Amino acid sequence: MNIGILGNGQLARMLALAGRPLGVGCVFYADEVSPCTRNLGETVCGHFDDGESLDTLAKGTQRVTVEKEDLPVASLEALQARELLAPGLQAVAASQDRLDEKTLLRRLDIATASFWVVDSLEDLRAAMAEAGNAAILKTRRSGYDGRGQWRLDAGSDLDAVWRELAGRPALLEGMVPFDCELSIIGVRGDDGECRFWPLSENTHRDGILHISFSRPGHPLQGRAEDILRRLMEALDYVGVLALELFLVGDELLANEFAPRVHNSGHWTIEGAVTSQFENHVRAVAGLPLGDTAPRGYSAMINLLGEIPPVEALLAVPGVHLHCYDKAPKPGRKLGHVTLCADDPAALQQQLQPLYAVLGLEEGGDRS
Amino acid sequence: MNIGILGNGQLARMLALAGRPLGVGCVFYADEVSPCTRNLGETVCGHFDDGESLDTLAKGTQRVTVEKEDLPVASLEALQARELLAPGLQAVAASQDRLDEKTLLRRLDIATASFWVVDSLEDLRAAMAEAGNAAILKTRRSGYDGRGQWRLDAGSDLDAVWRELAGRPALLEGMVPFDCELSIIGVRGDDGECRFWPLSENTHRDGILHISFSRPGHPLQGRAEDILRRLMEALDYVGVLALELFLVGDELLANEFAPRVHNSGHWTIEGAVTSQFENHVRAVAGLPLGDTAPRGYSAMINLLGEIPPVEALLAVPGVHLHCYDKAPKPGRKLGHVTLCADDPAALQQQLQPLYAVLGLEEGGDRS
Repeated sequence: MNIGILGNGQLARMLALAGRPLGVGCVFYADEVSPCTRNLGETVCGHFDDGESLDTLAKGTQRVTVEKEDLPVASLEALQARELLAPGLQAVAASQDRLDEKTLLRRLDIATASFWVVDSLEDLRAAMAEAGNAAILKTRRSGYDGRGQWRLDAGSDLDAVWRELAGRPALLEGMVPFDCELSIIGVRGDDGECRFWPLSENTHRDGILHISFSRPGHPLQGRAEDILRRLMEALDYVGVLALELFLVGDELLANEFAPRVHNSGHWTIEGAVTSQFENHVRAVAGLPLGDTAPRGYSAMINLLGEIPPVEALLAVPGVHLHCYDKAPKPGRKLGHVTLCADDPAALQQQLQPLYAVLGLEEGGDRS
Repeated sequence: MNIGILGNGQLARMLALAGRPLGVGCVFYADEVSPCTRNLGETVCGHFDDGESLDTLAKGTQRVTVEKEDLPVASLEALQARELLAPGLQAVAASQDRLDEKTLLRRLDIATASFWVVDSLEDLRAAMAEAGNAAILKTRRSGYDGRGQWRLDAGSDLDAVWRELAGRPALLEGMVPFDCELSIIGVRGDDGECRFWPLSENTHRDGILHISFSRPGHPLQGRAEDILRRLMEALDYVGVLALELFLVGDELLANEFAPRVHNSGHWTIEGAVTSQFENHVRAVAGLPLGDTAPRGYSAMINLLGEIPPVEALLAVPGVHLHCYDKAPKPGRKLGHVTLCADDPAALQQQLQPLYAVLGLEEGGDRS
């Protein structure tokens, strides 16, 4: 069986590595062949709105999935019409626009931060006043890893920000005084069965995920699963779905969801019986889902911009290295490392030599 | 970095899958491209004695390793002369001939079964008498998975067996009344560091490995490690080395070794912190070795001849499926499945539904 993947970055790469042992091959679709997925399957080259190339992909695969959400709706529609797309159009389309996403969450009674639609400078001024002069302006579309976001306060020059926005539709979101950022990742099979991995606790740096800890046995696990299940069922979802959450006191606020495997779930490769990548392949291929139970306690650290000397990384006891074979570039996700231990204290101890190699202080902050 | 692999079967496949996350690519060398390793790296096509094609491989890789031992010594010599081969010529050559292998083991004071060189029908008769009329005749070269072996007793027609042998050099080995078959797998780095996985306990069927259990904490672990370490140091070995052992009472007798990753170590993919495949790549690439500690208790069952319906296999809780994408053929290794649990009792319980899917009775016997 062959699955098509729209995109050929590290998520596509790790899906291919997980699919192969199951006998499921992956065919990538992108503008050009990437070193990231080279020698892991064929690449059909074409723009994401090139019907002819997409047709070639469709003819060579039994199911098509996505590794990113920023894709032309018309192309997704065409694949959906051929009953190839998993997850479906509705989920991918909703995740493309922060207003659609938040509207869907609210409709499902899932709590979110306050937000205001910003289509004009007047909207922005009014919303800032309502938000108490502390808020984040976000473009509705094409924002990821902190791009298209402005943190605003009473001293911000709203005229300047408005000019930078350059007419793009946007939302203003109230600042959430969160205790921590969590994500819940689940998978829904072709038959509607849902499974969930333990919550991840995530720390970002410059808007990009820096470190994720698995949190088996977290007191809010059940509540997070209920929220994600509601979302998966409403979307008649097939595959892995990730939902970012803010923890405020003992309340969970939904931030945004991603209709795909997610960076905060990379620890599942070694830290769970079945990884998010394998279960996404299983779901999309119509196969039974695998066990999502944790294997101990895990931490995943992104390697951004450059990969430290591999010899030094691999000398860290117990480390699992995942390079993506991508060209170095400031801020770019080039790989990640994972550590697993039997308990949180042992994990912290194991992390110390890794922090040293990465030039980080305890807790993962840059020294 | 690129590693060349002589061979393109399932061992090469799993080496490539393990190397990729480390940023180490694999180039395969074989008569023709195989579905087993297709889309996991380039294949240089040529016979194993084709100097020109081997030169192409050598030029495109920084190190060359083997996934099988039955290779022309002249070709190995040429690669060794270019300082590319790991493990080295001596180890691969010794493993090609049961007499050389046993002679080496004896020289290192490693106990083996009694054996007699058989170069004539008279040799065979004399050896049978000395062996007490219960022995196994084995060709010295090119025997694997039970091929080239005859189990002989007082009633055997030695003339007929001699004709079947057809002049091939052979050894007669005394029958060993073993309690069980074990294997110890270790890895030695470029810098001489040695690490060992827990012993595997192996059951064969029709001469082919059927099921392996990891045996963490086995009382003879230390002794087995000492034996393998002696062998690795004598050979100035680099990479993974597997040694099959007979347990007789509390004695270990060495049977044969394989200068490569080994079927009885497939459970290390999920059942150890670092798998035999990853550590072989690390050693051959000159990188630091990974932690070989077990993750719970594991069982690996080979899928021979045909792969049962994948849906049924994947519905078994906790199962890890590894298909090799090889064409079905009676007795051929087409894949394997692994289960891991926190203790042996839980493992036995987890195995029951797997035995049911595979049509096996408890303990892995065919019902």
